[in-house]
Amino acid sequence: MFICLKVLCVVTMRNEEHSYKNVEENTTMNNHNMEEVVEERDPEHNPLNEPLLIKRNRTLSGNPLALVGSKVSYIESLDYEINENDLFKQDWRSRSRTQVLQYIFLKWLLAFFVGFLTGIIATLMNLSIENIAGYKLLAVVEYIQNERYLTGFVFFMGINLVLTFIAAILCVCFAPTAAGPGIPEIKAYLNGIDTPNMFGANVLFVKIIGSIGAVSAGLDLGKEGPLVHIGSCIASILGQGGPDNYRIKWRWLRYFNNDRDRRDLITSGASSGVCAAFRAPVGGVLFALEEVATWWRSALLWRTFFSTAVVVVVLRAFIELCHEGKCGLFGAGGLIMFDVSNVSVSYNVMDIIPVVIIGVIGGVLGSLYNYLLHKVLRLYNLINQKGKMYKLMLSLAVSLFTSVCQYGLPFLGNCTPCDPSLPESVCPTNGRSGNYKQFNCPKGHYNDLATLLLTTNDDAVKNIFSTNTPLEYQPTSIIIFFILYCILGLITFGIAVPSGLFLPIILMGSGYGRLLGIIMGPHTNIDHGLLAVLGAASLMAGSMRMTVSLCVIFLELTNNLLLLPITMIVLLIAKTVGDSFNPSIYEIILHLKGLPFMDANPEPWMRNLTVGDLVDVKPPVVTLSGVEKVSNIVDALKNTTHNGFPVMDDRVVPPTGVASEATELHGLLLRAHLIQVLKKKWFLKERRRTEEWEVREKFTWMELAEREGNIEEVAVTKHEMEMFVDLHPLTNTTPFTVLESMSVAKAVILFRQVGLRHMLVVPKYQVTGVSPVIGILTRQDLLAHNILSVFPHLAKPKGREKKN
Amino acid sequence: MFICLKVLCVVTMRNEEHSYKNVEENTTMNNHNMEEVVEERDPEHNPLNEPLLIKRNRTLSGNPLALVGSKVSYIESLDYEINENDLFKQDWRSRSRTQVLQYIFLKWLLAFFVGFLTGIIATLMNLSIENIAGYKLLAVVEYIQNERYLTGFVFFMGINLVLTFIAAILCVCFAPTAAGPGIPEIKAYLNGIDTPNMFGANVLFVKIIGSIGAVSAGLDLGKEGPLVHIGSCIASILGQGGPDNYRIKWRWLRYFNNDRDRRDLITSGASSGVCAAFRAPVGGVLFALEEVATWWRSALLWRTFFSTAVVVVVLRAFIELCHEGKCGLFGAGGLIMFDVSNVSVSYNVMDIIPVVIIGVIGGVLGSLYNYLLHKVLRLYNLINQKGKMYKLMLSLAVSLFTSVCQYGLPFLGNCTPCDPSLPESVCPTNGRSGNYKQFNCPKGHYNDLATLLLTTNDDAVKNIFSTNTPLEYQPTSIIIFFILYCILGLITFGIAVPSGLFLPIILMGSGYGRLLGIIMGPHTNIDHGLLAVLGAASLMAGSMRMTVSLCVIFLELTNNLLLLPITMIVLLIAKTVGDSFNPSIYEIILHLKGLPFMDANPEPWMRNLTVGDLVDVKPPVVTLSGVEKVSNIVDALKNTTHNGFPVMDDRVVPPTGVASEATELHGLLLRAHLIQVLKKKWFLKERRRTEEWEVREKFTWMELAEREGNIEEVAVTKHEMEMFVDLHPLTNTTPFTVLESMSVAKAVILFRQVGLRHMLVVPKYQVTGVSPVIGILTRQDLLAHNILSVFPHLAKPKGREKKN
Repeated sequence: MFICLKVLCVVTMRNEEHSYKNVEENTTMNNHNMEEVVEERDPEHNPLNEPLLIKRNRTLSGNPLALVGSKVSYIESLDYEINENDLFKQDWRSRSRTQVLQYIFLKWLLAFFVGFLTGIIATLMNLSIENIAGYKLLAVVEYIQNERYLTGFVFFMGINLVLTFIAAILCVCFAPTAAGPGIPEIKAYLNGIDTPNMFGANVLFVKIIGSIGAVSAGLDLGKEGPLVHIGSCIASILGQGGPDNYRIKWRWLRYFNNDRDRRDLITSGASSGVCAAFRAPVGGVLFALEEVATWWRSALLWRTFFSTAVVVVVLRAFIELCHEGKCGLFGAGGLIMFDVSNVSVSYNVMDIIPVVIIGVIGGVLGSLYNYLLHKVLRLYNLINQKGKMYKLMLSLAVSLFTSVCQYGLPFLGNCTPCDPSLPESVCPTNGRSGNYKQFNCPKGHYNDLATLLLTTNDDAVKNIFSTNTPLEYQPTSIIIFFILYCILGLITFGIAVPSGLFLPIILMGSGYGRLLGIIMGPHTNIDHGLLAVLGAASLMAGSMRMTVSLCVIFLELTNNLLLLPITMIVLLIAKTVGDSFNPSIYEIILHLKGLPFMDANPEPWMRNLTVGDLVDVKPPVVTLSGVEKVSNIVDALKNTTHNGFPVMDDRVVPPTGVASEATELHGLLLRAHLIQVLKKKWFLKERRRTEEWEVREKFTWMELAEREGNIEEVAVTKHEMEMFVDLHPLTNTTPFTVLESMSVAKAVILFRQVGLRHMLVVPKYQVTGVSPVIGILTRQDLLAHNILSVFPHLAKPKGREKKN
Repeated sequence: MFICLKVLCVVTMRNEEHSYKNVEENTTMNNHNMEEVVEERDPEHNPLNEPLLIKRNRTLSGNPLALVGSKVSYIESLDYEINENDLFKQDWRSRSRTQVLQYIFLKWLLAFFVGFLTGIIATLMNLSIENIAGYKLLAVVEYIQNERYLTGFVFFMGINLVLTFIAAILCVCFAPTAAGPGIPEIKAYLNGIDTPNMFGANVLFVKIIGSIGAVSAGLDLGKEGPLVHIGSCIASILGQGGPDNYRIKWRWLRYFNNDRDRRDLITSGASSGVCAAFRAPVGGVLFALEEVATWWRSALLWRTFFSTAVVVVVLRAFIELCHEGKCGLFGAGGLIMFDVSNVSVSYNVMDIIPVVIIGVIGGVLGSLYNYLLHKVLRLYNLINQKGKMYKLMLSLAVSLFTSVCQYGLPFLGNCTPCDPSLPESVCPTNGRSGNYKQFNCPKGHYNDLATLLLTTNDDAVKNIFSTNTPLEYQPTSIIIFFILYCILGLITFGIAVPSGLFLPIILMGSGYGRLLGIIMGPHTNIDHGLLAVLGAASLMAGSMRMTVSLCVIFLELTNNLLLLPITMIVLLIAKTVGDSFNPSIYEIILHLKGLPFMDANPEPWMRNLTVGDLVDVKPPVVTLSGVEKVSNIVDALKNTTHNGFPVMDDRVVPPTGVASEATELHGLLLRAHLIQVLKKKWFLKERRRTEEWEVREKFTWMELAEREGNIEEVAVTKHEMEMFVDLHPLTNTTPFTVLESMSVAKAVILFRQVGLRHMLVVPKYQVTGVSPVIGILTRQDLLAHNILSVFPHLAKPKGREKKN
């Protein structure tokens, strides 16, 4: 009752706002079916403890900026379980040896193309960004050298605003889901949550162009997150044979029209994206494994590895091509992005103390960043939900602020004379890349703040990672750099452009590391550039909480294997420290978006609750007969939002001595399949079972795989209402079941490990006349905060021993 | 009937041999319970197709040498499932916040000590090996320089024989399970199979000393596999609080007395072992992940990573210590074992052709090696099963052959004048390590065959990996080296000493790579040293079939990140080629040992079979009542070999309108717990349920965790036989269940994903009077070849589309 009221209140609040198509209100556990609904039931139990805001943000959108307002729709779970019905088995049996080989071949071919296209798109993006940003900066340097400072500023700011505008307008108008990194949604997809409009062709297009615009505009964001999303989009589009409206209905591709194969492809795509972003093939695979994927098989490990190998070969080919100077300002640099292999790493065991300090402070800073970013995102939500204009304005304001700082702050820096041992071509530089920028300084001098600020983000990282240059940067410059990028890192991520989190954190962290290097200078002989690398690593671990994959990515970024032991220690410490404060940034975003993500570990209190208890507070399950009247099916579909219906048979007498009528569970039927049946009007005049040949002729597995269709679109005449449908051939005869006495903790493990959408609860006793299914549990029923909203007494903060 | 006869025949064959204690003959599916029995039912269905031998080898031993004969015992499955009974819940509820923190702290502390001890033992082993082998070789060189060739040979051979004898006698007499690499058994353990005597203190001791002996003796085997086993032993011993007979019964440690935590520790141990062997922390984690572990959680990834980080720090500390020359002949070399980072990797896209060729040939050679090694191991079994003397003789014979070849063959090599550009200290060398060995050559000349053969295996790898030396080795020398190590690699692995497979394959592969380099010389500009690295990688992938972990291990071994793309391609191609011929070498050994390993993917034909079909061919399940008479319990334990008994209650009337007597499934009770009940004589005079306080007082969870005890050891008086036991508090109330209509394919997935030991089969209909459990399936029931022996018609070779 209490919950009922709360929902009503939310509904009222909502109606003051606009456009809530498709939002389902059947949310509460005790009087509605909880299945496949987006909302978070009891905000007070949200670990982030934001009662007011979360209540407003109870609808889902793919956009972190517009949790309410933009594109509201409800999410579905994915069918990762193999639907073993007669049609599937028949289809599977009819596959010839050749078709099986075709399927395997195609799988590898698709993995190849995922890598190939991701590699090509990543290179083209790099090419565009380096050229746009390069020519922009060259022009600015020209103005400055001629002392036309104001014109230079107007030019710099104007270009940045235009580029930001392009990125933002595309995101706002064409693909709101393209804003942000996209990694949380991919993580959710691989967990079994289908966020709508995430992997379409329009998203891909907006993501590519938007990312080029945003990064060229010098905003404090990276192309790494977007590249992961781009890789996944490519994988998804390839797997379904093209963009939504222009799909190739190729016979070979039909086997890929299922959620399982799509999941595998998207995993490959995500790995390829990371690989293309950091030129880190092993790191990419591990990133997908550690951070993104929920399920993992060694066959997938292998195919993913293949995709990233292809990416590396493509990148390498382009690098060779560009070495000859055909790519404009793009060209310098090989496969290693931030090479620090030239430094001799001479540390001894006592250097473990500064390393520990870096790790601890990095962990604190990382979790602080998570905390503050969460606050900022909530504030941005308030602004963004006011309308598209506000979103645009916010983006442009951030761009303006960034331009002012990047252009203005270097004037505060002092001019330092170049080290005479350096050749003139190295110090000072005036071109696009390179250390020791001259900026407004006289000949033979350089401005260290300009070196760090008035450059592309990639180059800024390169410059601050530069080794054997302990005196290049003055402490004040590093402090200004660090503070500026802390502020930019917080305010930039939430705006309506494609944005990655990696680079902002690396920039912040490298500033922090270098600063620490200056402070600890006399006490350690670790190079300042290396300390910058370690600082970046520690902040990444403190915020994103990855270990092995980050370690390998840093290894591949910096090409210095001797750094490995200390990197490992920094990462472990920073993650431990960060974990004691708050969850990882991706988890925070998942929560903000209200995605029903299933964690790997059940809560300890779940052992004290049985699935029977959960079923008791749910409405009774709606079942269908093996041969069912059309009108009953239409009723079931119209009156419930269930996505799965148990199919019962009365006819079977069990093979015991006792000859009695028994109810038998035949299996589980999906809503999508029922709608297909109604659409195809596969009706029978009398109540009978269909023959096998009838099944073969009327339906194919391929048609069933289509998930489109809504019960409202189906027109059934009154005459047809009285007819029958034989549901047996369509029913998945092997659903996973649990006894009612099963603990919720184990049910959660089963649900997640096997990748279920529906879990049937069966009675633990044997009595004639009782239904063999007493309930169905779905993802929403098993989420901790949903359960706690109904059983609040369970939430004793007792410890987390089962969590590790 | 047919199968029955076959078993009888096998039994007869067996009786002609000796010592079959503990072997259970209740094997066949249709008339005995299949549970927990070692043997392979129908040898004709073994994928290796060795009807005769496998039939002889149907018992298990931990020793690849002595599949029949040595230490025969039957294996048990492990209880990875959480046994949620009243005692467990009570114990878990009673844990205070402090205890929970203690538990977490201890987990990390143990991970630390696993890494720490593995690191120290690995260093000490290295130290011993380098010194023993070093002084041996120095003396031999002395003899040769004085032209006392025969004395030199006798000395060389004698020392080698003594060292081999020490290693072999220890393995043969004290710990037969210490022979071989141990990796297959660890893999099986993590899959849920408890091979007896694998992780004891004696095994640890024998493995350390034996490995030092065998490697110092110059045998063609590595310390890598043994180090993985050593790491696992350390982890297991630490987790249980010390060696079997001297355990610390520390209160804190009691939480670790379960299979789950032990599994996690052993995973850490295996990673630490690889890390210590190759000084490859990330590679170690990935090896455990890709090759060894069956289940994986990100929390475990992280803790494993911590262990390997500790190993690296320990190794690094020792290296620093030894740089000052305090470690005898040990000292040179840093964290990178086979550093090839000094070579400039200048390859272009067209070099992909030689790379593909290396991969293809490597895959063929690798699978050929698997095939031949399998044959050799079978032959060795025949020899080894004749007795301990034969085992010893075989080992000594191999040692003799190795000595003869290593000492004699270099005399066939020509003396080559040193490159004048090399300083005299580099060429020729006469000490222990170093390229360009002088051997029998005049001053200023070196013998290239001696450089490769008369050295430790590690140095041989270093020498053949040496870069920028295309002309150092003559083609004939490389051919001799390659052929010799092919022969040694085949004949050495199966002898009764601790032996790893990594190094023999690397030696073979590097020879092959270098040979290919000489052949392809004019057509590629890849360095010959790099080709040797690639050759080694391709043979490893062709034989062991790992990808990502091998790639990282090679990266960490050679410290050359630019090699990564071509290494990836070589590995992928070699694995693909190898997979098309035969399974990986570890799978072959698992099969040879008859370990019931559960594969990740069900066979396609398993979709056409339901678990009901399996249950039908099994004997009826034996159930117990909630409150059971002692005599019934003793009967059940004595007359069956079942390890789990469903517990039924009759009393409960289901909460429906129909008031009828119903049978309710209370849960599953383990044999081990029943034996504890009988031992502790926890009997009741009358048929009643125990109160909660009684339970608390009489039993603790800790006592239940003990798995020792046999029904034969339990003495129950006639009077006690008439008493009762309340089984409710001990029963796991949340066993995993499947409906009888569930397909075997999905049951296998559930079984493996959740890590089960018993899977209850429940009826799909509801009828009063039918038991709520119609059968129990265990690991053996779900193994493909066991099922095929009963349902042979299912095995149509149709394709493997569901396998990828």
